Amino acid sequence: MITKVIKFGGTSVGNISRIKEVANIIIDKANKKQRIVVIVSAMSGVTNDLIKKSQEISTNFSDEEYDVLVSSGEQVTSALLSACLIDKGIKARSLLAWQVPIVTVGQHKNSRIISINSKSINRYLDQNYVVVIPGFQGISEKLRISTIGRGGSDASAVAVAKALKADRCEIYTDVQGVFTTNPDICREAKKIDKISYDEMLEMSSSGAKVMQSTSIQKAMLNEVEIFVKSTFYPKKVGTHILSENKISYDKVITGVAYSIDDAKVTIIGVKDKPGVASAIFKPLNDQNIIVDMIVQNVSAESNETDVTFTVKSNDMNQTEKLLNRLKSELGYKKLITDKNVSKISIVGAGMITHPGIAYKMFNSLALKNINILVISTSEIRISVLIEEKNAELAVKTLHNVFELA
Amino acid sequence: MITKVIKFGGTSVGNISRIKEVANIIIDKANKKQRIVVIVSAMSGVTNDLIKKSQEISTNFSDEEYDVLVSSGEQVTSALLSACLIDKGIKARSLLAWQVPIVTVGQHKNSRIISINSKSINRYLDQNYVVVIPGFQGISEKLRISTIGRGGSDASAVAVAKALKADRCEIYTDVQGVFTTNPDICREAKKIDKISYDEMLEMSSSGAKVMQSTSIQKAMLNEVEIFVKSTFYPKKVGTHILSENKISYDKVITGVAYSIDDAKVTIIGVKDKPGVASAIFKPLNDQNIIVDMIVQNVSAESNETDVTFTVKSNDMNQTEKLLNRLKSELGYKKLITDKNVSKISIVGAGMITHPGIAYKMFNSLALKNINILVISTSEIRISVLIEEKNAELAVKTLHNVFELA
Repeated sequence: MITKVIKFGGTSVGNISRIKEVANIIIDKANKKQRIVVIVSAMSGVTNDLIKKSQEISTNFSDEEYDVLVSSGEQVTSALLSACLIDKGIKARSLLAWQVPIVTVGQHKNSRIISINSKSINRYLDQNYVVVIPGFQGISEKLRISTIGRGGSDASAVAVAKALKADRCEIYTDVQGVFTTNPDICREAKKIDKISYDEMLEMSSSGAKVMQSTSIQKAMLNEVEIFVKSTFYPKKVGTHILSENKISYDKVITGVAYSIDDAKVTIIGVKDKPGVASAIFKPLNDQNIIVDMIVQNVSAESNETDVTFTVKSNDMNQTEKLLNRLKSELGYKKLITDKNVSKISIVGAGMITHPGIAYKMFNSLALKNINILVISTSEIRISVLIEEKNAELAVKTLHNVFELA
Repeated sequence: MITKVIKFGGTSVGNISRIKEVANIIIDKANKKQRIVVIVSAMSGVTNDLIKKSQEISTNFSDEEYDVLVSSGEQVTSALLSACLIDKGIKARSLLAWQVPIVTVGQHKNSRIISINSKSINRYLDQNYVVVIPGFQGISEKLRISTIGRGGSDASAVAVAKALKADRCEIYTDVQGVFTTNPDICREAKKIDKISYDEMLEMSSSGAKVMQSTSIQKAMLNEVEIFVKSTFYPKKVGTHILSENKISYDKVITGVAYSIDDAKVTIIGVKDKPGVASAIFKPLNDQNIIVDMIVQNVSAESNETDVTFTVKSNDMNQTEKLLNRLKSELGYKKLITDKNVSKISIVGAGMITHPGIAYKMFNSLALKNINILVISTSEIRISVLIEEKNAELAVKTLHNVFELA
């Protein structure tokens, strides 16, 4: 008998009638004699509401109690969905993290699952129960409720799939799969049938919001095959995420991703001497500010240089404050910041064997008079930072040039 | 060091600013070096909202999953209050029912606490923690979340007080204590300083809403002294509930209670033969319909009799259906029902040693032209059923006649 772990996100269980639809998807599988474990998120809006309450209580809300607070959201969905299944004649039960148990390590609010007692889950699957597990939560070694960071239900699903050696892990979302780019800004965007873990990871960290990066990483490490599907069109095929060697590529580029929550920082007139990069980026790192793209201009004539990098928009204020404080120490002349930038990325495993992709990308943007501010690349990704006003045009242009439609 | 169990109901923790006020009450005690365990209800409205969701999912919602669902409400309050205390510099932590554990037996939705591991609570009290425990919840012997019925936070508080051998149990509510009658309908109502468990029990089951009857019973059995106090005026003394032998009575009657959620059922023309009462009341009992007052008219001339009794208003429809179905079996002539009735009770331990109280009650109602439909009594209580429109007048009259102002 085939074992499936299926995960439903917050929108999929956003209200009572959607929970009933989700129950129907599950019943369809259970009737096919599949062993089903369901991972659920909190109903959309619930987690934000709980977080709002915590912020009203304290600007320094205890991490331990935060986890007790927010984990209640997934608990509620688990109970509602289980009861809905039971009402429809299916054997079902909720298993909370402490009942499995799902053991985590690391700090509260940001824990990591290290073990899942698959026996307790299998005990119910063997009796033909559908088991409903709240995502996002675990228990610490001190037997306190822990959570694994926002969007953590994906990670819960992958971890449970791994623990059960499940045949597949299905992630149900409000989209029909992973697309060549965002269909909202490019009508020609097509659903991708198969994508490698690496590509999905690059797409995700470049702005595609379908799955959380760390869960893709975890799936890759454990070779858990993932299917991203639509809760609203469950009969449609969706996107299959799997190892690169199981895919035969007919296109060089798999997708175009973009993000608009980046901000650009330029430090002008920094002394050009060894250790300057470290002096800039270590304090940022110490404050958990993630620096993405970095470029340093070559200074041929003076002993000064300009350093440009990007951070997430909501880290911008903290970054500015920090650099202002370090001004005399770093000895720079001027700080320029810009939130109106956008990062456009092309992603594709085929890039490795096809030279000239970068040129083709830069040239097609130049033909549209789109100025490139910063460039960064990985083996299977090329990203450029451009002015935000050009983002839509750039995405459409690249989608067209690389024949993704 | 003195150990206190203090319980806050839904209105007391109804919103964020009230939770902050509750934290101040606790801090005041913690600063006096008292060992404090706090029992909290769900924020007002939360439980009803969860129940509404369950009803939208299914009219036959699983009892097991119902407990998983609704227990989340108290979990949320526990986390918010604990974090609020921590934020204000107090050592505090939440301990959920499964973490204590608080073990229950009996059916889901209506379980009974049978054991509480006081060691795990004392472990934190010994380290000067304020321990915050969600009321209303426990875990079953199958390690599933259970709940102990609505209003169960009172029962949780009494059970924890008993397990810890606490010096006192304080129930914080939205009123200033137990009153001689409802101050909303009788301005002369006075707060009662001391009341016996028995009297409180009769007051509660006769309509006074301050505390849930089963928790008073439990407190009586275990001699847990209770103080009912106001969350909004925490400095005021409140009402002390204790053993009768510790009270010196200066009044015969302690209070006047009333309820308006009763309904009267009269079965006319029942065969007057042995076993008829059992034939009527056994099927009602089988369907968990609680019958309160019963009166059967003596039939001197015919071999027929009329039986009148009361049930709760919301059991009325079910009662009518059942009796209509049993019509031929019982062989009665006619069924008359009336929801516009009210039960007025006078309660007082002094009644035992003072004859003539019943006469005084009936006479003073007669002088006001208030007709008595049914009478029932216990050792320390006399209740009469009257037309609902006369309820307020009856309460005021009795409050005055028995000099409670």
